[in-house]
Amino acid sequence: MTPLDLTFQALADPTRRIMVERLSRGPASVSELAQPLDMTLSAVVQHLAVLEASGLVRSRKAGRVRTCRLSPTALQGAERWIAERRTAWEHRLDRLGEFLAETVDTSEPGSKP
Amino acid sequence: MTPLDLTFQALADPTRRIMVERLSRGPASVSELAQPLDMTLSAVVQHLAVLEASGLVRSRKAGRVRTCRLSPTALQGAERWIAERRTAWEHRLDRLGEFLAETVDTSEPGSKP
Repeated sequence: MTPLDLTFQALADPTRRIMVERLSRGPASVSELAQPLDMTLSAVVQHLAVLEASGLVRSRKAGRVRTCRLSPTALQGAERWIAERRTAWEHRLDRLGEFLAETVDTSEPGSKP
Repeated sequence: MTPLDLTFQALADPTRRIMVERLSRGPASVSELAQPLDMTLSAVVQHLAVLEASGLVRSRKAGRVRTCRLSPTALQGAERWIAERRTAWEHRLDRLGEFLAETVDTSEPGSKP
């Protein structure tokens, strides 16, 4: 599994996206993460493990409280990959538009430059 | 499964990302998609089915050739979701920075405005 595989896999679950959304607003304890979720703490901990394995989230235990935070470079890889694909696609559309514009110019004798 | 679940799930596989990357440069037949991939055509068709189910790719058969293309709004939902999370996270860092700056200003009597 590459880092991108793990990131997209981690984001493919709605519960994990809720957890990322919460952490994008600041660090949270595991029980704070679990609070809005209708599931056992054990299930939350399993989702957290997937998020940590992907590098999206880091956690540290101090005393009895484990605090989770979004990783600084967390979402950059996935965002960059998507943006690059979208840019390539838009460039292609631009080139297609230019091609069509040129084709119309030369194929319509009545058109003016 | 929500649209975002399906999109991130589709992007979680390296073969499917290669296919999306190819299609971001323009439409392709199934055999053109398969050409750089070291797998059976049947495996490629299965990956294509996942991409189509997610809405990232559309295909149309004309005669014996099935042509695939990236869907116009394909990657926007996923890109927007990630960008919103990153923005929230950066705003939080900005606020933290302002808070620290103010704290330093008031707690250091020797500092000048």
